[in-house]
Amino acid sequence: MTARSKQKLRLWLQMLKATKHVENEVRANLRRDFATTLPRFDVLAILYKSGEGLKMSELSSQLMVSNGNVTGIVDRLVADRLIERVAIKGDRRATLVRLTDRGRQQFGHMAQEHEGWIATLFQDLDAREMDAASALLAQIRELS
Amino acid sequence: MTARSKQKLRLWLQMLKATKHVENEVRANLRRDFATTLPRFDVLAILYKSGEGLKMSELSSQLMVSNGNVTGIVDRLVADRLIERVAIKGDRRATLVRLTDRGRQQFGHMAQEHEGWIATLFQDLDAREMDAASALLAQIRELS
Repeated sequence: MTARSKQKLRLWLQMLKATKHVENEVRANLRRDFATTLPRFDVLAILYKSGEGLKMSELSSQLMVSNGNVTGIVDRLVADRLIERVAIKGDRRATLVRLTDRGRQQFGHMAQEHEGWIATLFQDLDAREMDAASALLAQIRELS
Repeated sequence: MTARSKQKLRLWLQMLKATKHVENEVRANLRRDFATTLPRFDVLAILYKSGEGLKMSELSSQLMVSNGNVTGIVDRLVADRLIERVAIKGDRRATLVRLTDRGRQQFGHMAQEHEGWIATLFQDLDAREMDAASALLAQIRELS
């Protein structure tokens, strides 16, 4: 292995640590301010963006961490009346999952707070540095 | 919320996606080439670096993701004779966990392959870009 690949490995471990650090902060803040969890927040965020709702298979594939327990999370969000299951016309076997009005309102509030937490965690970065970081990350994403 | 905080949120989501992307590649490669999992790899990596071994509490605190199942992972690595529990002199209640020779050899091989995977995923970044990325990530880590 070369010095170049060692540098890449160090950068990856640094990136992983920074990401876990921010995730842990978000997780702690969600618990403290909303008595909720990151997987619940992630499910609500995906459904919020989807607008019309998603099939369970679509929801699962959009969750970035493979989570065997999506069904359990959805069941509890339904019980809390934050999301609901609705029939799909012309497809008797599948249902859509979507936010209720109550869920949309609650998530809107959480998303606003979340944006503030991230802004605080990233406070030292100026616009030019963020453009540079974004360009670098795009290069990693393009590979696979 | 400002345009600045929106840009920070976008950068964070991009960073999260890039990190999950690399993690998922590593997870798939570990399964394919070594029939093992990321949590097992992480435990072996921490013990490899520690040299002399760690108490369970030290091992848990060094794992970046809080994992309620560290004991289960350790039990299985012991059963596979990759790690072992040893008594600590003068402390009858605690034991150290450390790599066996077999574990050290196997992990050495895995670590080399892992470094190659990361080098491939980060292949478009040159040394100057990596220095810039590292400086940016250090700023995020300093906050909390």
